[in-house]
Amino acid sequence: MNWLVVDEIIKNALVEDGAYDDITTNSIMSKDDTCTVDLIAKEEGIIAGIEVFRRVFTLLGNVEVEFLVNEGDKVSYSQLIGKIKGSTKNVLTGERVALNLIQRMSGVATLTRKFADKLDGTKAKLLDTRKTTPGLRILEKYSVTVGGGCNHRYNLADGVLIKDNHIDAAGGITQAIEMARKSVSFVRKLEVEVESLEQLQEALEAKADIIMLDNMDLATMKKAVELTNGRAILEASGNVSLDTIRDIALTGVDYISSGSLTHSYTALDLSMKNLKRIDIYN
Amino acid sequence: MNWLVVDEIIKNALVEDGAYDDITTNSIMSKDDTCTVDLIAKEEGIIAGIEVFRRVFTLLGNVEVEFLVNEGDKVSYSQLIGKIKGSTKNVLTGERVALNLIQRMSGVATLTRKFADKLDGTKAKLLDTRKTTPGLRILEKYSVTVGGGCNHRYNLADGVLIKDNHIDAAGGITQAIEMARKSVSFVRKLEVEVESLEQLQEALEAKADIIMLDNMDLATMKKAVELTNGRAILEASGNVSLDTIRDIALTGVDYISSGSLTHSYTALDLSMKNLKRIDIYN
Amino acid sequence: MNWLVVDEIIKNALVEDGAYDDITTNSIMSKDDTCTVDLIAKEEGIIAGIEVFRRVFTLLGNVEVEFLVNEGDKVSYSQLIGKIKGSTKNVLTGERVALNLIQRMSGVATLTRKFADKLDGTKAKLLDTRKTTPGLRILEKYSVTVGGGCNHRYNLADGVLIKDNHIDAAGGITQAIEMARKSVSFVRKLEVEVESLEQLQEALEAKADIIMLDNMDLATMKKAVELTNGRAILEASGNVSLDTIRDIALTGVDYISSGSLTHSYTALDLSMKNLKRIDIYN
Amino acid sequence: MNWLVVDEIIKNALVEDGAYDDITTNSIMSKDDTCTVDLIAKEEGIIAGIEVFRRVFTLLGNVEVEFLVNEGDKVSYSQLIGKIKGSTKNVLTGERVALNLIQRMSGVATLTRKFADKLDGTKAKLLDTRKTTPGLRILEKYSVTVGGGCNHRYNLADGVLIKDNHIDAAGGITQAIEMARKSVSFVRKLEVEVESLEQLQEALEAKADIIMLDNMDLATMKKAVELTNGRAILEASGNVSLDTIRDIALTGVDYISSGSLTHSYTALDLSMKNLKRIDIYN
Amino acid sequence: MNWLVVDEIIKNALVEDGAYDDITTNSIMSKDDTCTVDLIAKEEGIIAGIEVFRRVFTLLGNVEVEFLVNEGDKVSYSQLIGKIKGSTKNVLTGERVALNLIQRMSGVATLTRKFADKLDGTKAKLLDTRKTTPGLRILEKYSVTVGGGCNHRYNLADGVLIKDNHIDAAGGITQAIEMARKSVSFVRKLEVEVESLEQLQEALEAKADIIMLDNMDLATMKKAVELTNGRAILEASGNVSLDTIRDIALTGVDYISSGSLTHSYTALDLSMKNLKRIDIYN
Amino acid sequence: MNWLVVDEIIKNALVEDGAYDDITTNSIMSKDDTCTVDLIAKEEGIIAGIEVFRRVFTLLGNVEVEFLVNEGDKVSYSQLIGKIKGSTKNVLTGERVALNLIQRMSGVATLTRKFADKLDGTKAKLLDTRKTTPGLRILEKYSVTVGGGCNHRYNLADGVLIKDNHIDAAGGITQAIEMARKSVSFVRKLEVEVESLEQLQEALEAKADIIMLDNMDLATMKKAVELTNGRAILEASGNVSLDTIRDIALTGVDYISSGSLTHSYTALDLSMKNLKRIDIYN
Repeated sequence: MNWLVVDEIIKNALVEDGAYDDITTNSIMSKDDTCTVDLIAKEEGIIAGIEVFRRVFTLLGNVEVEFLVNEGDKVSYSQLIGKIKGSTKNVLTGERVALNLIQRMSGVATLTRKFADKLDGTKAKLLDTRKTTPGLRILEKYSVTVGGGCNHRYNLADGVLIKDNHIDAAGGITQAIEMARKSVSFVRKLEVEVESLEQLQEALEAKADIIMLDNMDLATMKKAVELTNGRAILEASGNVSLDTIRDIALTGVDYISSGSLTHSYTALDLSMKNLKRIDIYN
Repeated sequence: MNWLVVDEIIKNALVEDGAYDDITTNSIMSKDDTCTVDLIAKEEGIIAGIEVFRRVFTLLGNVEVEFLVNEGDKVSYSQLIGKIKGSTKNVLTGERVALNLIQRMSGVATLTRKFADKLDGTKAKLLDTRKTTPGLRILEKYSVTVGGGCNHRYNLADGVLIKDNHIDAAGGITQAIEMARKSVSFVRKLEVEVESLEQLQEALEAKADIIMLDNMDLATMKKAVELTNGRAILEASGNVSLDTIRDIALTGVDYISSGSLTHSYTALDLSMKNLKRIDIYN
Repeated sequence: MNWLVVDEIIKNALVEDGAYDDITTNSIMSKDDTCTVDLIAKEEGIIAGIEVFRRVFTLLGNVEVEFLVNEGDKVSYSQLIGKIKGSTKNVLTGERVALNLIQRMSGVATLTRKFADKLDGTKAKLLDTRKTTPGLRILEKYSVTVGGGCNHRYNLADGVLIKDNHIDAAGGITQAIEMARKSVSFVRKLEVEVESLEQLQEALEAKADIIMLDNMDLATMKKAVELTNGRAILEASGNVSLDTIRDIALTGVDYISSGSLTHSYTALDLSMKNLKRIDIYN
Repeated sequence: MNWLVVDEIIKNALVEDGAYDDITTNSIMSKDDTCTVDLIAKEEGIIAGIEVFRRVFTLLGNVEVEFLVNEGDKVSYSQLIGKIKGSTKNVLTGERVALNLIQRMSGVATLTRKFADKLDGTKAKLLDTRKTTPGLRILEKYSVTVGGGCNHRYNLADGVLIKDNHIDAAGGITQAIEMARKSVSFVRKLEVEVESLEQLQEALEAKADIIMLDNMDLATMKKAVELTNGRAILEASGNVSLDTIRDIALTGVDYISSGSLTHSYTALDLSMKNLKRIDIYN
Repeated sequence: MNWLVVDEIIKNALVEDGAYDDITTNSIMSKDDTCTVDLIAKEEGIIAGIEVFRRVFTLLGNVEVEFLVNEGDKVSYSQLIGKIKGSTKNVLTGERVALNLIQRMSGVATLTRKFADKLDGTKAKLLDTRKTTPGLRILEKYSVTVGGGCNHRYNLADGVLIKDNHIDAAGGITQAIEMARKSVSFVRKLEVEVESLEQLQEALEAKADIIMLDNMDLATMKKAVELTNGRAILEASGNVSLDTIRDIALTGVDYISSGSLTHSYTALDLSMKNLKRIDIYN
Repeated sequence: MNWLVVDEIIKNALVEDGAYDDITTNSIMSKDDTCTVDLIAKEEGIIAGIEVFRRVFTLLGNVEVEFLVNEGDKVSYSQLIGKIKGSTKNVLTGERVALNLIQRMSGVATLTRKFADKLDGTKAKLLDTRKTTPGLRILEKYSVTVGGGCNHRYNLADGVLIKDNHIDAAGGITQAIEMARKSVSFVRKLEVEVESLEQLQEALEAKADIIMLDNMDLATMKKAVELTNGRAILEASGNVSLDTIRDIALTGVDYISSGSLTHSYTALDLSMKNLKRIDIYN
């Protein structure tokens, strides 16, 4: 991950939460109070965001975090997953931001793992989309990989994806691909979205590198795989759910993308508990 | 809402999505192409974020948005909720960010409404928490009010909330309240979290303005309401779900807070469809 | 204090003063020159801003500051109040900014102490206002507390204060309070400004938490205190000077606010003298 | 003035004051309310900062300001000096910041005028120093010119001023001037501070462009003027007050500098009064 | 081009040049002076940067620019290429920055055209590199396209290019490609640098999308083209000059990259002349 | 140099180059790989930018740079000029930015030295201009001094230079100088550009501090020197090349300025070679 970007997210979140002006803690806690706290899982799921959680406290200072699990591990209800130790002021002040981040990242990884497990034994790989939380894309896309998914293009600047509106405006798939090929750097692959076998045929002839099969039924998708015969990478998109993904994979497509991974997860329930005031430096 | 902050969120999201470098659209669309598109609901829910959606296109320029529903309205499957009209480049470039924002805001409002409806006919009011998405608190807290909830303190700088760890460090509830009263501006109310009726009694004697009843069972909560007898505002917290919230309300507490409103919503499914290329200026 | 904000003030001041481009010192002083300097009071007053003064040199680097007095101490003409030791370049480069800050902060504390001393033996407390120097509010409000005053709301976002224009627009005190109560978070107290006993009566009935008595004469203020009888916090405002403040306090009001504390102080005269070039590391 | 810098000062002040989150005004005032208000002088003085005052409301939007006096005019108690007209929300929200700025700027101009008047009929000109309020130097130095003073160097990057410590480090005035001449661009004048006629003689021989006579008595200063005989510009510094400045001027020096202009002024008392709610657009 | 980025470059350049503090022009020119000026070519070359030149004056305001040539046109000595009209202050203040930008952009386009002309009638295309001026990459890469070249990857985040050190660290070409394929998004092509036909053979077997032939002699390059036979895109790199590029192209490679385009151009000599003070608004 | 500014240039360049997202290196290099690399000169020239080169790696971290030459030294083809040692990831990631900077700085110094050598034995000094690369002025002006040149004013805020358009607008040289003298701080010298001996005479009478002889032929310039006779500093400008500069110097002018130093240099060819993977910490 690009930590310059992640640090900005964390600092922004700390400012948003008034962490440098915690009027309650500042009224009561002495600068020298130290403590230990436990990080506990309160439901089953996949952990993602260990280094981001730790980074919150590194930026606040004087707090050490030790994790008892690894990134991507499955945790269960009431499991102790980490120990936090250090300045009580900073522990209390950073608690909410650190949890808000790791809970969402773990939520993405947990949902992604459920989808990815459905693909076991097939050749298809799971892809995310750009349907991410504004401002947190870097963390959510990373969490998708922790959960076992792959990343599609990062953003509009990062890859060509020619959709129906582009095709319509260009006057056809062939023309659209030609226009993009002329305009963008030769280091880029060209992806085009098709809705029928006819469009697929045209995209193959125009030498698209990647072809997205948009909302096709299973039978059509299967024919698309046969027609393509390895001449392009195939991505299935539309109506992808935990119920449908395995059948889609069995058609033989290379990738299956789902917006759910990043727009319909819920935060994994984690909690910081058992704060004990101790003199950790003796 | 503070639009300086919201504008920063939108601009940041546009940069994150590479909106000013949309290599596909830039290759194919002419600067002068114009179009209309429909905004459609794909599931039932409460709409929040109309002005934020519009602002995305205002910041990109040359796109008008007309909404057929009002903030807080319930929409149903396949309902047409808005019309977008203007520069095709900017419509395509801003589409994902605009949807990512309004879908999440509407998701919060939709879930909040479900909770709020359970309180019909009781005197209790619904509160949010600080368990919000880092970077989007302003939008999520606003969406809670659209859904029928109230806002608790905005952040750590915005209100005093004395929790168990503060009480422990101060040497007791009385001492903690005294320390806070001395340290913070007299314009602030003091809230303290209590776990038993004994603690409640102490908080009342120390003249706390607001008292949070943390994880109390219904019977104890009821006794707390009687004991308090209007001398402080009572907030119930912990184990609040759609199943439990009404019974909690019926104990007579003033407020009930739930983190779910902002950490366990999913995006409301909305979509921009039916792009028609037209010459809108003739 | 929120040191993120203070650091920005200091860095901004250093850039404003061209401290990283001190063409005179850079022409003449070697990077390795070291020295000691004395910080001397040149008039009597109260010291505030010790940590801010030190922070200027910490940010420049390689300079140690030792203070012989504590924050809030009274100093007298020609008293040695601190010793600065370290890189001569950084001492000369930071001198003006460090002095400009501590002299103004001490000026606020000195004037505040004069007002606060007048309240000895009364129950009234001294309050500041928002009439602060743009960009330095955090330092001036802090200095008020060093001088023995209390802080009113930090800014327009930090507290409700309903003034005559709001009352007029709302259609009356009762309506204005009701509108504010409905709009702002329940964690906030509501303050309203009144100009007569009739308005006071209405504010009390509308359950204002704090009532500002604006420009009332002493006799009316006294009646206001009686009428209120502890049902709200009373703040006196208007025509507060060193001559009038004690009589105002004796009416029995809880707080007295004065803009003079932050708009009519002058800098306390402090000076860095007796620079001695020494090899401090041997 | 560099308005990029001034705009930053104003925006920073508005954020500091929570102007975009005025919870009271937002609760009560409708977006469409309009009004007129008077700007009144409450004591005699010199007005400075008219365009800065106006700019606060321009940045907030929908408020017009008309001034009945010109920059640098003398105003008297209760004089109407301007009319503000427009959005009531923005008038109330910007009031404090706009006043905080113009009152301080006018305070500087008022004090400067008192000093400048003492120089009437002499050839000496009045200079400011770097003893300005951190963050507001651009406004205070400008206000000095409004009051009839001249500006010394803007900051450490903007001019060479060789002081005793530099002389000591360089090994003498001649050496210090030589080092500076070699190091800085030839477009700069070189100023050196001297404490005796011997030092003055050395500075003249080293061809200093400007020589500051530091804390000299009147007799010595007079001899310095004679000795210099037009070979360098002479600046008097130290113990400059309203009582002493005329005698200093009569020694024949070219410039007299005083830190008081910017560190010992108080805000000029101005007030926004008589808000009338009117429908200004009809 | 991403104009957010270009605007930052221009604003930064204006601040760097003190354009908002032009003490000479501010002393002499009235705010209302208007004028016309000519933009003249003082040597032969290719024009690039017309919109950037215009944007400098748009950001300063009140200046119109009309160009008599188009982006990419060849201009000759003393040719009139544009007319500037508007505020004299802004014309004088923006002149240097506007010229500094367009002269460098045109310098890049002029040199690129010389290289590109050498490729006439061959199938090879000209590529730039990352050897650009820090801070101006967006403008220089754009100017390469104006001059007839193509862009290689924008930066390290924008494309995979496996060089000798990566190969060495990975333990071989096959391993390096495999590691990259596993780690980066499937939307990216993989490029690898090879120094021999053996390495080329391995890269082809590992299915590299693009292969850079590094510093190969013409004979070897020719064999590389035959061996590859269309299975990958071939890029020649190293020792590319105006003397050698045509022979390299004739080997049959697809692309030839040269750092010279952006590190060894000189500014094209353009000048703003014949300022005429006129009242342009009458 | 002002390192705050330089650090911004470097950080901006690293972000521009995607250095924190080097997808190739991140795929292949382990975080713990270490290496040594040589910095080699590939052509003869003057080295400038040693500390800037080092700073790139300091900001990335975990890389040490040792230089075998000093700032301003002449280096020759294939000479080893430095050794880089540390984290392989950071070496590869920072390589391009570090080289792009030092190559351009050395290019400026190399060209400047060629001009400066022509002045040997004359009294004239070489000056740069404002014709610098936008964003890199601080580095280019510094490199001019490394090459043996002097710096003219840094920017429009840093010195007065009255040109023909100013003179025309003011109504004459005398008026223009008078207006500037009245408006700018007395610490500044006034420079005026003249095109004839008549103008020179007027400038001398108006007591200009510096006079620029614009595009005069050698004979006229010689007369100008005689006419001036030390009453002002004379700067020659226009048609300055390696062929003409010595003759210009021999006319007796004090300074000669040339835009070529910063607008017509090419990057000095330097290269990082011979990366050896070693365990540098054992």
